[in-house]
Amino acid sequence: MQRQIDQIPFIMLDDKNTVLPLFRQIYEAIRTAILSGKFTSNFRLPSTRGLANQLGVSRITVVNAYDQLFAEGYLEGKTGSGTFVAAHLPEEFLQTTRVKARKSQAISRQRTIVFSEYGNKLAANYQHIQQNHGASVFIPFQNGVSAVDSFPFDVWGRIAQKWHKNPTLNILGYGEPAGFQPLREAVASHLRSARGVSCTTEQVIITNGTQQALDLIARVFVSKNTAVWLEEPGYLGARDVFSINGAKVVPVPVDDEGFDLDQARKLDESVRLVYLTPSHQYPLGTTMSLARRLSLLEWARETESFIIEDDYNSDYRYSGRPLPSLQGLDRNNRVIYLGNFSKTIFPALRLGCLVVPTDLVDVLTSARALSDLHSPTIDQAILAEFIREGHFARHIRRMRGIYENRQNILVDEAELHLKELLEVSPAESGMHLIGWLPDGVSDWKISNEASKFNLKVAPISQYFAGENRARGGLVLGYTAFDERQISNGVKTLKEILSRN
Amino acid sequence: MQRQIDQIPFIMLDDKNTVLPLFRQIYEAIRTAILSGKFTSNFRLPSTRGLANQLGVSRITVVNAYDQLFAEGYLEGKTGSGTFVAAHLPEEFLQTTRVKARKSQAISRQRTIVFSEYGNKLAANYQHIQQNHGASVFIPFQNGVSAVDSFPFDVWGRIAQKWHKNPTLNILGYGEPAGFQPLREAVASHLRSARGVSCTTEQVIITNGTQQALDLIARVFVSKNTAVWLEEPGYLGARDVFSINGAKVVPVPVDDEGFDLDQARKLDESVRLVYLTPSHQYPLGTTMSLARRLSLLEWARETESFIIEDDYNSDYRYSGRPLPSLQGLDRNNRVIYLGNFSKTIFPALRLGCLVVPTDLVDVLTSARALSDLHSPTIDQAILAEFIREGHFARHIRRMRGIYENRQNILVDEAELHLKELLEVSPAESGMHLIGWLPDGVSDWKISNEASKFNLKVAPISQYFAGENRARGGLVLGYTAFDERQISNGVKTLKEILSRN
Repeated sequence: MQRQIDQIPFIMLDDKNTVLPLFRQIYEAIRTAILSGKFTSNFRLPSTRGLANQLGVSRITVVNAYDQLFAEGYLEGKTGSGTFVAAHLPEEFLQTTRVKARKSQAISRQRTIVFSEYGNKLAANYQHIQQNHGASVFIPFQNGVSAVDSFPFDVWGRIAQKWHKNPTLNILGYGEPAGFQPLREAVASHLRSARGVSCTTEQVIITNGTQQALDLIARVFVSKNTAVWLEEPGYLGARDVFSINGAKVVPVPVDDEGFDLDQARKLDESVRLVYLTPSHQYPLGTTMSLARRLSLLEWARETESFIIEDDYNSDYRYSGRPLPSLQGLDRNNRVIYLGNFSKTIFPALRLGCLVVPTDLVDVLTSARALSDLHSPTIDQAILAEFIREGHFARHIRRMRGIYENRQNILVDEAELHLKELLEVSPAESGMHLIGWLPDGVSDWKISNEASKFNLKVAPISQYFAGENRARGGLVLGYTAFDERQISNGVKTLKEILSRN
Repeated sequence: MQRQIDQIPFIMLDDKNTVLPLFRQIYEAIRTAILSGKFTSNFRLPSTRGLANQLGVSRITVVNAYDQLFAEGYLEGKTGSGTFVAAHLPEEFLQTTRVKARKSQAISRQRTIVFSEYGNKLAANYQHIQQNHGASVFIPFQNGVSAVDSFPFDVWGRIAQKWHKNPTLNILGYGEPAGFQPLREAVASHLRSARGVSCTTEQVIITNGTQQALDLIARVFVSKNTAVWLEEPGYLGARDVFSINGAKVVPVPVDDEGFDLDQARKLDESVRLVYLTPSHQYPLGTTMSLARRLSLLEWARETESFIIEDDYNSDYRYSGRPLPSLQGLDRNNRVIYLGNFSKTIFPALRLGCLVVPTDLVDVLTSARALSDLHSPTIDQAILAEFIREGHFARHIRRMRGIYENRQNILVDEAELHLKELLEVSPAESGMHLIGWLPDGVSDWKISNEASKFNLKVAPISQYFAGENRARGGLVLGYTAFDERQISNGVKTLKEILSRN
């Protein structure tokens, strides 16, 4: 027997849910209805246009949700002509249910747990968080992983062995929350010369990578509903940490010059904290123009605001004039600078840094101390020596050549095989390219398809807090893959794209 | 010219300030008055009895505050007969003021910064935090540091070199927030056999030591003014993290059987979260009795509360019957277990673990992911192999012998040299002993004196959130020091104590 409806009455979109984009909210609602048995097999869903009208969103948003449900096997039929709950739900869903059942058996009954507001937000969004902050895989075109096979592990291993085998007493006890002094010095010196950062050693606080730096900043500055400007599209790590910490995230569309202050002020004039990636906008890759930088700094001075500058892969620039850091241009101590070694050493190292105005050092260092005391000292000592002995600068120079070459390979292969299917343009910097899809092709759908062929292509839509009303796109990381892997990856992508 | 007063009108004690104990609030108020010039040289302070009456606190609380000010050179004269602001304030205070002036010069003017409530609390207490969560020194009788010179660095270095020099691809990218799977397995297996912890691998979440575990729990469970029971005296790391995260800390006096539920309920019946150290109460060293354990578990079941069990140095038991963990006795998934490797490997490693009921895994793992993604994977791999190959168990057995011996040396030396001056009794477990002072001798004063002689003896008073109405005491860590160091330390202590 077939049931049919024109509306899905229980879908309530939450505009203010800045963690889950709209399409994802629709996806979750329908998926839950299927898994809970509310929508049974062969149940007919409303058309994408009908549901879009009902919810007051653009049709592509509903299409994205349906596409993901199709790709995962929850739905059957053809988008537009008739969409049904799959007759046979795949084995894995039943397994999911079984695993859940087994899990909660250990707990005597389904318990009500009183969490804090923060805990409740985590509980409501843990699947999203674990999906976006989980382990990386080294398959094309995973983004944000470096060419670890080209890392000088012989040198690194030699330094590491020295510190692990014959450590001095001072690096074995509890250490300074702000970081191991020689590493703070090495980082300050590197940032001054390589990125024009204006700082003393005392302004450097070592963190467990960018994620911790963002979390410390959010905790120290964000009260409930504190408005924060973020780039749209933008970095998920920042969006999640600010929204789960209670901020009202205000997504500000970026253009060719990067973050646009005028747009931002129109959206919310009250904001006093902004997070951005000026040297290489994540994920679009644009460089923020000098004019925009100067006006943003002037805004910060006038309004007594702070700018969080995430300089996440400024080390990889292949052409064009490198702009020094925003922090280096600032004359009013309004920039909090974030650097990290995940992209230059390897992600699993979990070391990064904050460079902060002197009057923020005590508060942020205290936050660090209470969070987890300090980063492992031996790791800090190894990295400090690696930088000080010149291996770090040498490694970056070498990687720059390798990555430029890999980017060229990707552009050439795409030119050769993906004409009309995916528009891949070169970029002056960074570790990934965007492949733009033809109008109407869902990046979520392609991304899901690709994962079945052992390809990782992140849909650009996932980096939008609001609706992505522009074209779909795929994030193509190229740095961790050699010529053969890139070439094979492009050919597989061609097959997938040709069928859509 | 001499000014004299009987009252200090501006001291307002804040009972609810659970970060700063009362004596410390008095100390801070007077110190600030001196440094700001409100109290000038030769200004006469009220008697300790007079100020105690004015403030409604016990006299020993005021004595402790005055003693610390004496020890630091702010005050002169004799307690009881007449107390004055020092005629010549030591050079260092002037330096402190100068450093501050130089610091803020970089910032164009003294700025008003809008912090979150968390940020404001950090700003108000950063000196206290940095003092209590800073670097450790390897001088007698620093507590909580292991005998790192007896650690098998040859084995550790060999394993470390392997992982650093020839790492497999899977440990270099972003890892799982819950931890490196082989380490979670090794930890689960160790805790099951050594501590009677009842858990699967999935319940283990690797953290950056106990501090991070506590912070994650506080964030997930504590809303503003959520009441939490803590042991009194108790661990500062827990008290600070809960109070700065907004909890209402309810200190519950411990006795010979450890944490006392009846007392706790009288103090605040509404509490649903308690932090305690049942295997070795910190800092008093008592073991919580079985009867108390069972009634606490029953309370947790009845009231649907959670018990945070910090099993921080259960590995070091020298005599008596070891009690298995509270977690292992629990049948209702009401215990969150904390373990760490700071005391068994070395503090700078920054690795520990949470063992949590299965229905808390997702939320706490998500909190971990958003905080800083995960602990450095190579460090986790090294530790996993060290445990798996049996080196860890062997090391603990060896250390147990060494520490028992060192404790005996300390007890014998104290017996020999500190009669009447300090009462040091042996303990069945742990890494430190308490030396009890004669009535009326301030532990703060002795601690400050000792620091001038390169001795680190923490005053037991600092572990009290409320007033310490009992005797003063000194925490004497013995594990990191050899016979000569302990013996010399005791002799130095004798000199200091004899003069007081």
